[in-house]
Amino acid sequence: MSAPNKEPSAALALTMGDPAGIGPELALRVWQDRKRDLIPAFALYADIDLIRGLARAAGFDAETVIQPVANATAAASIFESALPVVPVALAKPAVAGKPDVANGAATILSISEAVGEVAAGHASAVVTNPIAKSVLYDAGFKHPGHTEYLGALAQKFWPSAAAEPVMMIAAPMLRVVPVTIHVPLKDVPALLTTDKIVKCARIVDAALKRDFGIAAPRLAFAGLNPHAGEDGALGSEDRSVIEPAIRQLRAEGIDASGPFAADTMFHDAARKTYDAAIAMYHDQALIPIKTLAFDDGVNVTLGLPFVRTSPDHGTAFSIAGKGIASASSLKSALHLAASMSARRRASAPT
Amino acid sequence: MSAPNKEPSAALALTMGDPAGIGPELALRVWQDRKRDLIPAFALYADIDLIRGLARAAGFDAETVIQPVANATAAASIFESALPVVPVALAKPAVAGKPDVANGAATILSISEAVGEVAAGHASAVVTNPIAKSVLYDAGFKHPGHTEYLGALAQKFWPSAAAEPVMMIAAPMLRVVPVTIHVPLKDVPALLTTDKIVKCARIVDAALKRDFGIAAPRLAFAGLNPHAGEDGALGSEDRSVIEPAIRQLRAEGIDASGPFAADTMFHDAARKTYDAAIAMYHDQALIPIKTLAFDDGVNVTLGLPFVRTSPDHGTAFSIAGKGIASASSLKSALHLAASMSARRRASAPT
Repeated sequence: MSAPNKEPSAALALTMGDPAGIGPELALRVWQDRKRDLIPAFALYADIDLIRGLARAAGFDAETVIQPVANATAAASIFESALPVVPVALAKPAVAGKPDVANGAATILSISEAVGEVAAGHASAVVTNPIAKSVLYDAGFKHPGHTEYLGALAQKFWPSAAAEPVMMIAAPMLRVVPVTIHVPLKDVPALLTTDKIVKCARIVDAALKRDFGIAAPRLAFAGLNPHAGEDGALGSEDRSVIEPAIRQLRAEGIDASGPFAADTMFHDAARKTYDAAIAMYHDQALIPIKTLAFDDGVNVTLGLPFVRTSPDHGTAFSIAGKGIASASSLKSALHLAASMSARRRASAPT
Repeated sequence: MSAPNKEPSAALALTMGDPAGIGPELALRVWQDRKRDLIPAFALYADIDLIRGLARAAGFDAETVIQPVANATAAASIFESALPVVPVALAKPAVAGKPDVANGAATILSISEAVGEVAAGHASAVVTNPIAKSVLYDAGFKHPGHTEYLGALAQKFWPSAAAEPVMMIAAPMLRVVPVTIHVPLKDVPALLTTDKIVKCARIVDAALKRDFGIAAPRLAFAGLNPHAGEDGALGSEDRSVIEPAIRQLRAEGIDASGPFAADTMFHDAARKTYDAAIAMYHDQALIPIKTLAFDDGVNVTLGLPFVRTSPDHGTAFSIAGKGIASASSLKSALHLAASMSARRRASAPT
């Protein structure tokens, strides 16, 4: 018997994100564009009055087009005519651009409900709208960030599965994975270990095979130092830390190459030589992808027992409610989550 | 009376670079394309037999099209019909792809002759072909690199002028300046001081006005840390080192802004908001420009008493002599040197 979450028609679970940010309005916009952009069906985990208010402001008959559903199983069948919303009640009405600590609990609940629905087989994957960490911290949130919270939820819902979140930013022309992420630059050299690089790359390799359908993924590693250390003249870590990781990965049968001078890895011709670039720190990974694909990058969490993607932008409180935020990255995140979860279902043992 | 080097028809002085690298063949190729690409006249400081051999291999009557000249003054008038070469004799015939320490002295002499010609008013600016530092070190070269040697030559030929070389990489869509350059990444945070940033930015501001014709240059500063430190949560230098530099520069009337999250500074819309990006380290500057303009970037040395540009690539020994190297960056370097020196002449006191 197939596991329930292998049902191909299951909808995606889209979280609300901070209700005062751009997430809710983008969710409605994406639903409006569902036919033109072939948006895969999703259920939105959000406050029903918030979404109906947005729909009304957009000229819709909100009672008709915003349909409460008990869970995501019904979402796919009604998606063409209505936006299905699994209700997550706010404590106070949200005001666009004005985040409120009182609504932190609902923001967090939207995430855990969405993940729980995937675990229950009601939804195929999780797509998260942006949250504001500082608002959630004030509301008592104990996790360093979105991704770490999803790791904790994975352990809760899939207690026997491995959960080592690895962040990838994926765009049509480039996929990048930073080995270290949200740390001061001065701490990067000490945090970078051969073991950390190897573990990260194994997860990337496995995900490219299982979720991206790449039979023999090619991983290109950036050096830490200028010119990848120029034979040791400009730094030692390229030889002492990164090269041993690449050797070990190759010994395991993974197509790992480098370390390469980071500045020459990302032009058009270079990008054709690999399926993912493994960068050593945040800006080394994020500069090239945001330079090339500012609106289209998707944040993907690899290494979890479920598929999770996210638009590669923040809550954008300063433009929330103005109708000017780009829905491009959220659309890309929904498309990628659908294709990843379809591949994962197809490749999973039955 | 005008200074001799303000003569508008003066040719550029192009160095040989390593004779076993791609420099000599690119010089000939650029000369071949002089009409189609409106290449400004230049004199090449190189071994006459080397260049005639390349011309012969390219099917030319080498005795006719490669013309020895005593100095650059005659170059402009013959450039349409012949490539003018100021002879700099090699110790041994050069073999493409096989650098030879015996030719290090000639490589260095080509640079000092070219700079001396600008000082003498025979040439308008220096464009340098790539050298291989390790070859020159073996030949007794005592300077850390090309740019530092040019700084020493500036002090020799213009003893009373300031010479504080600052590297800019310029392309049609982006100009970047790294405050620290060829140092290990782990040394960057300690090397970065408010004073160093301020001095660098003053030189950039002055050069954009004088040599690039930008009346009120806008300088955008990258943060050192992810998200420019995220209010101190991801590192302190953005606040403690970079912000004070920006404040000081603004107090001096320079249009300095930031520090900005480096990953969001380089997409199409962001680049329209400044004339040069000031980056804190090598890859932060070089990743975006080489991603966007791999073949068209020009290395410009600001802060010298003469104009110097260079193609943004190395000697490429592995492809030297094969006729496959791109001449695009050298062409851009020649065009930029010509326009910079013309502006500098136009703005200089007479």
